[in-house]
Amino acid sequence: MRLSTRNQLKGTIAEVHLGAVMATVKVRLDGGDQIVTASITKDAAEELGLAEGQPATVLVKSTEVMIGVE
Amino acid sequence: MRLSTRNQLKGTIAEVHLGAVMATVKVRLDGGDQIVTASITKDAAEELGLAEGQPATVLVKSTEVMIGVE
Amino acid sequence: MRLSTRNQLKGTIAEVHLGAVMATVKVRLDGGDQIVTASITKDAAEELGLAEGQPATVLVKSTEVMIGVE
Amino acid sequence: MRLSTRNQLKGTIAEVHLGAVMATVKVRLDGGDQIVTASITKDAAEELGLAEGQPATVLVKSTEVMIGVE
Amino acid sequence: MRLSTRNQLKGTIAEVHLGAVMATVKVRLDGGDQIVTASITKDAAEELGLAEGQPATVLVKSTEVMIGVE
Amino acid sequence: MRLSTRNQLKGTIAEVHLGAVMATVKVRLDGGDQIVTASITKDAAEELGLAEGQPATVLVKSTEVMIGVE
Repeated sequence: MRLSTRNQLKGTIAEVHLGAVMATVKVRLDGGDQIVTASITKDAAEELGLAEGQPATVLVKSTEVMIGVE
Repeated sequence: MRLSTRNQLKGTIAEVHLGAVMATVKVRLDGGDQIVTASITKDAAEELGLAEGQPATVLVKSTEVMIGVE
Repeated sequence: MRLSTRNQLKGTIAEVHLGAVMATVKVRLDGGDQIVTASITKDAAEELGLAEGQPATVLVKSTEVMIGVE
Repeated sequence: MRLSTRNQLKGTIAEVHLGAVMATVKVRLDGGDQIVTASITKDAAEELGLAEGQPATVLVKSTEVMIGVE
Repeated sequence: MRLSTRNQLKGTIAEVHLGAVMATVKVRLDGGDQIVTASITKDAAEELGLAEGQPATVLVKSTEVMIGVE
Repeated sequence: MRLSTRNQLKGTIAEVHLGAVMATVKVRLDGGDQIVTASITKDAAEELGLAEGQPATVLVKSTEVMIGVE
């Protein structure tokens, strides 16, 4: 499936932390040392079988992205 | 100001496209060739004086991030 | 790619309206007469070649969904 | 109150799962078998008294909707 | 309809600016001089007949709110 | 850092509630008695050292704001 979602960044899962109904997942982006944190449902994390070291894509809709400048 | 926003990625503005009330801004992330697109208001783009080649930070709240795996 | 995105609803594109940098796309959900409207970038609408009558999936992260009751 | 929110889909609550501070609520859409999952605060779920079998409206702002095509 | 949406702030519309498919609406919050800007669809702004001086409620899901501290 | 984020409202933290991986933070806006609730990660709440009585800024991207009228 091709998605309208503009931002699809490649990386590797660095950490999965399951809570009660939510989970946080950290992904290290390829080609750098920048980390992206995702807050997703625990159900999603479990269904996808997310685990440290796994290749993953980080997806973000462009309307969710803010810009900061000095 | 320190922000609760988990994701603050460094990069350089690669393109600014102003529309009627919205604008799209593309930022090339440091340490790789990955591009992030932001849809922000035209007012914000103009007030910040965003321009190609300018260093910028991309900010995304963790609740807005999705994960994909093969 | 399998996505963490909880909501992936099947339907058919009913309308595509391109603006300056944004676009609105209406999708009629299968098995009912309910319509979902998406505001995406014009670039995404054009790259995907979205057109009336085309089957499409509507995706929404669960953190973006609100509930109302009488 | 009339809302700017474009997407207001009718359905019936199929499941409520309370966590520590968040809750997940599943709603079966009318006229089909499609399910929508919402991640809302536990406070909201409790204040609204959400319960299985209750009619409910699912609300999503159009800027939160993505489109996928084959 | 009662909503799960935690944030429902009262104010008065200070400005409506229609674009091609989007619109920006500024609302002055009651009891202060703080302004909130909303980016909604032009269709929503027109259907609601939004106009300067009109009382309005600003709604924001709690998962969309960030916190900053000095 | 100057941000594209249109909505930056001043207030004082009224409550911090930590969950398993998420937290809810309530902020009373200056110049009124209106409260804003934020759902952020527990990590963010802890790293910022958020505590009742602390001055704080509430940030919301304009694309996340909805409008309601009677």
